[in-house]
Amino acid sequence: MAKDKKMVEAITSMEEDFAQWYTDVVKKAELVDYTSVKGCMVIKPAGYAIWENIQHELDRRFKETGVENVYLPMFIPESLLQKEKDHVEGFAPEVAWVTHGGLEPLQERLCVRPTSETLFCDLYARDIQSHRDLPKVYNQWCSVVRWEKTTRPFLRSREFLWQEGHTAHATAEEAEDRTVQMLNLYADFCEEILAIPVIKGRKTDKEKFAGAEATYTIESLMHDGKALQSGTSHNFGDGFAKAFDIQYTDKDNTLKYVNQTSWGMTTRMIGAIIMVHGDNSGLVLPPRIAPVQAVVIPIQQRKEGVLEKAFELSDTLKAAGIRVKVDETDKSPGFKFAEQEMRGIPIRIECGPKDIEANQAVIVRRDTREKTVVSLDALAEKAAEILENMQSDMLTRARTHRDAHTYVATDYEEFKQTVNEKPGFVKAMWCGCQECEDKIKEDVQATSRCIPFEQETLSDKCVCCGKPAKKMVYWGRAY
Amino acid sequence: MAKDKKMVEAITSMEEDFAQWYTDVVKKAELVDYTSVKGCMVIKPAGYAIWENIQHELDRRFKETGVENVYLPMFIPESLLQKEKDHVEGFAPEVAWVTHGGLEPLQERLCVRPTSETLFCDLYARDIQSHRDLPKVYNQWCSVVRWEKTTRPFLRSREFLWQEGHTAHATAEEAEDRTVQMLNLYADFCEEILAIPVIKGRKTDKEKFAGAEATYTIESLMHDGKALQSGTSHNFGDGFAKAFDIQYTDKDNTLKYVNQTSWGMTTRMIGAIIMVHGDNSGLVLPPRIAPVQAVVIPIQQRKEGVLEKAFELSDTLKAAGIRVKVDETDKSPGFKFAEQEMRGIPIRIECGPKDIEANQAVIVRRDTREKTVVSLDALAEKAAEILENMQSDMLTRARTHRDAHTYVATDYEEFKQTVNEKPGFVKAMWCGCQECEDKIKEDVQATSRCIPFEQETLSDKCVCCGKPAKKMVYWGRAY
Repeated sequence: MAKDKKMVEAITSMEEDFAQWYTDVVKKAELVDYTSVKGCMVIKPAGYAIWENIQHELDRRFKETGVENVYLPMFIPESLLQKEKDHVEGFAPEVAWVTHGGLEPLQERLCVRPTSETLFCDLYARDIQSHRDLPKVYNQWCSVVRWEKTTRPFLRSREFLWQEGHTAHATAEEAEDRTVQMLNLYADFCEEILAIPVIKGRKTDKEKFAGAEATYTIESLMHDGKALQSGTSHNFGDGFAKAFDIQYTDKDNTLKYVNQTSWGMTTRMIGAIIMVHGDNSGLVLPPRIAPVQAVVIPIQQRKEGVLEKAFELSDTLKAAGIRVKVDETDKSPGFKFAEQEMRGIPIRIECGPKDIEANQAVIVRRDTREKTVVSLDALAEKAAEILENMQSDMLTRARTHRDAHTYVATDYEEFKQTVNEKPGFVKAMWCGCQECEDKIKEDVQATSRCIPFEQETLSDKCVCCGKPAKKMVYWGRAY
Repeated sequence: MAKDKKMVEAITSMEEDFAQWYTDVVKKAELVDYTSVKGCMVIKPAGYAIWENIQHELDRRFKETGVENVYLPMFIPESLLQKEKDHVEGFAPEVAWVTHGGLEPLQERLCVRPTSETLFCDLYARDIQSHRDLPKVYNQWCSVVRWEKTTRPFLRSREFLWQEGHTAHATAEEAEDRTVQMLNLYADFCEEILAIPVIKGRKTDKEKFAGAEATYTIESLMHDGKALQSGTSHNFGDGFAKAFDIQYTDKDNTLKYVNQTSWGMTTRMIGAIIMVHGDNSGLVLPPRIAPVQAVVIPIQQRKEGVLEKAFELSDTLKAAGIRVKVDETDKSPGFKFAEQEMRGIPIRIECGPKDIEANQAVIVRRDTREKTVVSLDALAEKAAEILENMQSDMLTRARTHRDAHTYVATDYEEFKQTVNEKPGFVKAMWCGCQECEDKIKEDVQATSRCIPFEQETLSDKCVCCGKPAKKMVYWGRAY
């Protein structure tokens, strides 16, 4: 009983303290646990199962576009990391260094990969000789390490799981197409599967990836009005190719440098799911990503026939392709409801002796608490319909929230006031200079989230310096 | 053209130099590549796709037995590694040490996990309070690092991929049952999917896992007569539980230590597939694990209708659930045949203008080269049948080879001569003392592979010292 109580104890409300609410949810929904390893996390079964579903769905979409999976070493020799100047400057300050193997010091120290551009380049330099060897469209699923000072489960930890795609192409155009293709794939995945609406755009030079010519990003808005970078896709042009000497013989028999891209999505998306959809009862999982989509909770389960019926209903739902469990523990129905809510299971199906007599059950949606009494003959069909409605309602609700927290500012006072007083995105014009980005960051701790592909002209002046504007930018405070 | 030639250049024959043959196959079948990171490997698409199939099939079987996946940190603080005495003695000499994070030295150095017993214990010590929290049946898919001096792709590398299951149980009996259950699962997987017959048994104390009470193993025999440890399952009793203080309150309200197990299978199984089934033309993949099961090779593909027909046949096979590709490159059919053989694709389907006219195609099996002319109307059905036959023939052939290379020795001269002259397993009686194991290792470089569950009485004396025999043991030289 101790454990049931722990789970249903009230969590901090998100209005009172959003950060504490987040911490409570990740712990009480049993997604992660802390460890003896500072800054790292244990991803527990309920959390890892979400990641498996993310992997499964992304991997399927990747392979449809011709991606092949590989595995490269987790170590990068220091000399290899240093080959591309911008890249090493960006990453060296935050890598972990292996200096001893067994009982002996290493001749050259190795960093634990923070990202694998350098290793993929090392491979491509050996593997690519001719235009016939192109394109290379490789991806790997692995963990990476970045020695962060302050960490939070899923959002920022010293080790996290991700996929990193790395491609090499014959032409700049093909590399650009792949960069945009993967950004669109991420955006579709977020909206269709995670029910998280995103803004697609380009990072400013200040915010782009170390070594990239262009970084594209999808940005989403959390419930507290802070932004989360949710997936990035980088076009490297031939910068890495020149640093690593990756050349191929083209059809016309001339030597050319390849053009490269990389793109990644991480376990921080689990944090995004929590912060976009969660509420004061806990996690709310979009049905398409939920490891368990429905839980059958028998009422008065000791009465004859109740548990049998619960398993019968579960079989019916399973046969219809719904991921379902029966909660047959000896906890009270009230505890079970609270657990289902904390864990964010999309629907619960309540069924007791009276329901059985009336050949019905009650379906309760996690997000709206809406109750639907359904005939047992139509249970699977109705459950599937409710799950589909819930999925699309969650996206709509998240989009409405985001739009309601997206503001416009055309002068700097208004801009600062909006950032300070109205958590959310602020759309404003920008001159293109890093000085303005630096000033905005210093003044209100907001960063340029992206230069959206869908541009608007809000005014003709930079919101910060007043000089002629070049682009509209989404600004915000971010995770 | 350069690349085609490279692939079909003759490889070293296995009779001439088995080690070189192996190296040639892993390189020319494009399973791995070497890297700038000494002792580590790149697993290329053709190799990684085999691993994905292994993962998929094992994971499915695990989950059927109630296993839940998790992810734990890749780092282990030195103090945590040292908690279980035998364990740290076994692993400390071969771990990689992280001593710096970012620009600063760490207060306590961290090893990169060589295996994760200590981390799981750390988690279980926090997570387990009551008998209601048991059993815990967790598994993780990850990479581990062991600082080996001599390395070979798949068989022994400084970093390798694996799964490691770690469980905690209320009783010793339950832990023992789980240990054996997982060993049986591995054995079934090897035989049913990889077509590799195995001997199930227990490791001697000398060969058991550092910290285990009992290690069970499945041992297989490679084509060159050397043994390969193919999967292990360990029963820890309550040794780790006592070292890490993992106690639970039982139903009778007393505090008890949990009983634990761990079990793992690695990418070395790809090495086993190569060395059990490969031949002098390259890799031979068992159909059930092959990423591509059939390749359609159009003959005279520029003639009207040939390529179209090839893709039509491919669609037919795909619809029947066969993993198929069309080789429509501009290489000659001869090159394509050699490539299919090098890559170990189980069947190729040849189809040219004359075949189309006769409404037929030719199916050629990779293992036997047997050709079957089939009517296009029965293609999918016939291909499926040939794949099934090939799968079961491969297991039979491997078993026949193993049995033909399993010898019996009842006195020490005979034993030494057999080990020296007849590569394979030697069955012999053993007194149970480590001294005899040490002597045998020194005399003929053979180790005890396992004490098989299926015991025979070959004599009543230890083959080495002549004292009363306790058990029959499989001996052999091993990878």
